[in-house]
Amino acid sequence: MPESPEIPESPEISESPESPSNIVQVWLTELDRTLQAGDIAAALDLFEDDCYWRDFVSFTWNIKTLEGKEDIERMLTATLDSVKPSGWVLAEPATGDAAKAEAWVNFETAQARGYAHLRLRNGRCWTILTTMQELKGFEEKKNFTRETGVSHVIEKGRKSWLEKKEEREARLGYEEQPYCVIVGGGQGGIGLAARMRRLGVPTIVIEKNARPGDSWRNRYKSLHLHDPVWYDHLPYMKFPEDWPVFASKDKIGDWLEHYTRIMELNYWSSTECTKAHFDEAAQEWVVQVIRDGTPVTLRPKQLVFALGVSGYPNTPVFEGAETFLGEQHHSSKHAGGGDWTGKKAVVIGSNNSAHDICADLWENGAEVTMVQRSSTHIARSDALMDLALGGLYSEQALANGVTTEKADLLFASLPYRILPAAQIPVYEQMAERDAEFYSQLAAVGFDLDFGTDGSGLFLKYLRRGSGYYIDVGASQLLIDGRVAVKSGQLASITSDSVVMADGSTLPADLIVYATGYGSMNGWLADLVSPEVADQVGRCWGYGSDTPKDPGPWEGELRNMWKPTNVQQLWIHGGNLHQSRHYSNYLALQIKARMEGIETPVFELQESHFTH
Amino acid sequence: MPESPEIPESPEISESPESPSNIVQVWLTELDRTLQAGDIAAALDLFEDDCYWRDFVSFTWNIKTLEGKEDIERMLTATLDSVKPSGWVLAEPATGDAAKAEAWVNFETAQARGYAHLRLRNGRCWTILTTMQELKGFEEKKNFTRETGVSHVIEKGRKSWLEKKEEREARLGYEEQPYCVIVGGGQGGIGLAARMRRLGVPTIVIEKNARPGDSWRNRYKSLHLHDPVWYDHLPYMKFPEDWPVFASKDKIGDWLEHYTRIMELNYWSSTECTKAHFDEAAQEWVVQVIRDGTPVTLRPKQLVFALGVSGYPNTPVFEGAETFLGEQHHSSKHAGGGDWTGKKAVVIGSNNSAHDICADLWENGAEVTMVQRSSTHIARSDALMDLALGGLYSEQALANGVTTEKADLLFASLPYRILPAAQIPVYEQMAERDAEFYSQLAAVGFDLDFGTDGSGLFLKYLRRGSGYYIDVGASQLLIDGRVAVKSGQLASITSDSVVMADGSTLPADLIVYATGYGSMNGWLADLVSPEVADQVGRCWGYGSDTPKDPGPWEGELRNMWKPTNVQQLWIHGGNLHQSRHYSNYLALQIKARMEGIETPVFELQESHFTH
Repeated sequence: MPESPEIPESPEISESPESPSNIVQVWLTELDRTLQAGDIAAALDLFEDDCYWRDFVSFTWNIKTLEGKEDIERMLTATLDSVKPSGWVLAEPATGDAAKAEAWVNFETAQARGYAHLRLRNGRCWTILTTMQELKGFEEKKNFTRETGVSHVIEKGRKSWLEKKEEREARLGYEEQPYCVIVGGGQGGIGLAARMRRLGVPTIVIEKNARPGDSWRNRYKSLHLHDPVWYDHLPYMKFPEDWPVFASKDKIGDWLEHYTRIMELNYWSSTECTKAHFDEAAQEWVVQVIRDGTPVTLRPKQLVFALGVSGYPNTPVFEGAETFLGEQHHSSKHAGGGDWTGKKAVVIGSNNSAHDICADLWENGAEVTMVQRSSTHIARSDALMDLALGGLYSEQALANGVTTEKADLLFASLPYRILPAAQIPVYEQMAERDAEFYSQLAAVGFDLDFGTDGSGLFLKYLRRGSGYYIDVGASQLLIDGRVAVKSGQLASITSDSVVMADGSTLPADLIVYATGYGSMNGWLADLVSPEVADQVGRCWGYGSDTPKDPGPWEGELRNMWKPTNVQQLWIHGGNLHQSRHYSNYLALQIKARMEGIETPVFELQESHFTH
Repeated sequence: MPESPEIPESPEISESPESPSNIVQVWLTELDRTLQAGDIAAALDLFEDDCYWRDFVSFTWNIKTLEGKEDIERMLTATLDSVKPSGWVLAEPATGDAAKAEAWVNFETAQARGYAHLRLRNGRCWTILTTMQELKGFEEKKNFTRETGVSHVIEKGRKSWLEKKEEREARLGYEEQPYCVIVGGGQGGIGLAARMRRLGVPTIVIEKNARPGDSWRNRYKSLHLHDPVWYDHLPYMKFPEDWPVFASKDKIGDWLEHYTRIMELNYWSSTECTKAHFDEAAQEWVVQVIRDGTPVTLRPKQLVFALGVSGYPNTPVFEGAETFLGEQHHSSKHAGGGDWTGKKAVVIGSNNSAHDICADLWENGAEVTMVQRSSTHIARSDALMDLALGGLYSEQALANGVTTEKADLLFASLPYRILPAAQIPVYEQMAERDAEFYSQLAAVGFDLDFGTDGSGLFLKYLRRGSGYYIDVGASQLLIDGRVAVKSGQLASITSDSVVMADGSTLPADLIVYATGYGSMNGWLADLVSPEVADQVGRCWGYGSDTPKDPGPWEGELRNMWKPTNVQQLWIHGGNLHQSRHYSNYLALQIKARMEGIETPVFELQESHFTH
């Protein structure tokens, strides 16, 4: 990654003309020449017909994948004059051969320094990912440019770090308005706020819980991360090297709290956002919050919703549910633990939470039945680490020089159009490796899938954010019959049981609805207005035209980390990996606007499918 | 640094026979052969007559410098049979040339893996530093060997991370005794406890203040670190890359608190150690503490005092001091801030605290006089960073591949006998570079020195722990006359003034005694017994036979981080750099004892000069 403020020079290339570095450098020189000459036709000759240019903010002030030469031509035509790309050089020696070369590349634009990943096939570009890394003149102060922390010229009226911090905290949101408000102080809001702080964007994070990390602490007792540690770092400060592979919810909660303090975020906990509207005259948001019981009005220029990928808990109302005499709650309210000895529990749902909660209830003595209403993709944690993540996010990957930052970019370097083709073989391997496991699951009546097209877990996550379980042990409970599984639809609920469509009855003292969450638009409709929610349109999914992700094709996640159809309103979220990576681009977009840099957005997405 | 559990292989050496790597590898092979053959005479032939072998625990289970072949012979004769050194290989290519080569080396012993730094001159050893890095079979669990954090086999009775943590905290010190107790929870105790935790040594830290970091927070308001950030990291978790060069006391205090929580230390705050004695029958310590007002008796096998390099505040009693009607306090009680407009302050002392407090009082309106009773070494912060620390601890050093861990070892690689010769030119350069500054200071009557032998700040620190100020701005106040300086001895104190030996009078509303601290033995005498304090003997200083550091020559700091003459009693302390580095060796010594590994101490130091 480029270190501000210098542009690394191209490494010495003393290799043969057929070396991948030479091949790539020749290509880069040609790209540079044609783009600087404005000769788009010549530039397009450098691409294969089957080509993809994915851009994170550096050309498009958007998150955009251009597919094929026509798309690229349209993008270059629209952006070249203002972006003025230049200085394309290898950041390190390229790899591969004449047939297939791969390279990390530095470049710059009129406004920013960029970092790119490039794949050539027979000397022409198949994929290029261009990303903005820092705005010129607004670099983060770190390493060589870190602050001194104290003036060594002593003058009267010097204030200590603590005094300045306390004054700033007392002022911001009252005498002085933040440039940005982030609604939601979970992992997403915290990581984004850290980037804002580094960039000098005055920001307040609004969080209804009492302490940073409570959004994790408040979940069921047995919850651990289902993704391994290498995938989960926050920006700037990595977990220590003895951090467990799968941290428990409380440990993550504590880490988020320490991180928030260490990064000196303006984090308003015990604060609820009650309403927000855009003040057209002032061109700013008016955000009503209740802080520790006292109403406060904030007037930020930019408003970010970081309330999670999910909206409100989704609890389907089954006929007769109101007559149920036992306890019933949504999975988000399931605390875990307790003594359920001799009690019967029915868990409706078969994704991550459903499995974890079944295991939790079984561990605590309950007789548990999982009700599976639709087929589910199961990926065993070990297999996922070995086959799907290991090359990018593992101790071995680090040892191979694949830093977290590089892994994030490599992960992003295959556009969503071609990602499934790359993922399918992984899951074919997984099906083969764990064949016995899958047949045992099928034998107890569990309805399995690997995604519509066999592309597995990550694409299910991108398309619909649901439909899978990363097996961390609960599948074995199903296989062994320690937790029963019942596939099919629910008919109704009685005072003491769940009745299935096939007429069978599941006696129940407890019903847990692990039935997921609504659309992210729910937050917007509620906190701003249904009209604004409609104007933003559907969030998440990329128009794959697969179940729960209708077309048209978008090629990027809808509304995430990029301009929406509502001005100065942004959506942030995703898992720890996405929050870490994409918060960089969102923060740069907001910083550019604060500094009055022109940010012409190329082809703002259309909005549709609010719900 | 070696990564557990594999021993890195020697790098491929395809260079000429005259390459430094080849020269060093030939030397290492010879050392390996002669030591494995027990042929000490032949091994000694590999050394220059003027040679130094410094060992941190790996050969001697002590911290020891052997000077010359006779010392080395005695050490090898005593240790070779039990230590069984082997596997000496280059950890990375050597540097230098045939005349002077320098190398990083991996080796192992029967008990441990080691890392060494070597300097050859014309093919023979001038200096070697051997250090223990990890005990075989008791490696820290990190990176490839980190813990999973959760079992993916679900069983009844699983406990969450939080439950286990809370149970452990409730049990340790009550139902279960810690193996080690550390008295003192400042930076030293915290860093050492983190290493103990990583090594699985049950440890409790006792700290009288309410929160980790209070030992910093409670100091005067304007206090900042006088050492730059690169020098100040704690073990395992480095400050973020945007950390200021000089952090304020409160920021450091907060960092220590977060660190303590993140490392999951058993940190008993608001707890005072009142008495400790050794139970001969049980061969363990009996440590009386008052925790939150309740007496608790701890019975650890090992007791570490980490109460700082200094003992109790040292306040000389001047004639008439009891008649003074203004405020008078020791520098450790000086809170800073406040309004001193129109008041006269006399600060007795001319070291770091005295300068900082003079500046603080001047900033807050006082008319300040510094009373300098003996000459003082002043090193300007910038000069110190550029000339003395920059090669090892700076952004540039990191860019050159000198990690913090390597810097610590390089710093240690010049034994104290030859360190002054290496330091003198640095301070000659400093005197030249800042000649005008020094002459301005002299012009206002400030009595300057650069140490007895001109070896400057770090050696003053090692020898006596006092006698200098790292100029972070206060010297300019003296030069400008904004703070007056009065050199000479005090005669007495009256109700409203300080009377000097020359008869002059300094009117005073406030007297601050920046008169330093007593010997570390003060703690021992008080908390254990005067007899035990005498048995341990003087701490700190290495017998340089310079002011405040009487001989005989020791060659290593007395009693620090190594076995003392009182069994199972250890002293830990030093600045952030020393605490970070030497805590590693202290932790390994204690871990070895816990695991019942034989730890024959080579030439335990004699004790003398208790006070």
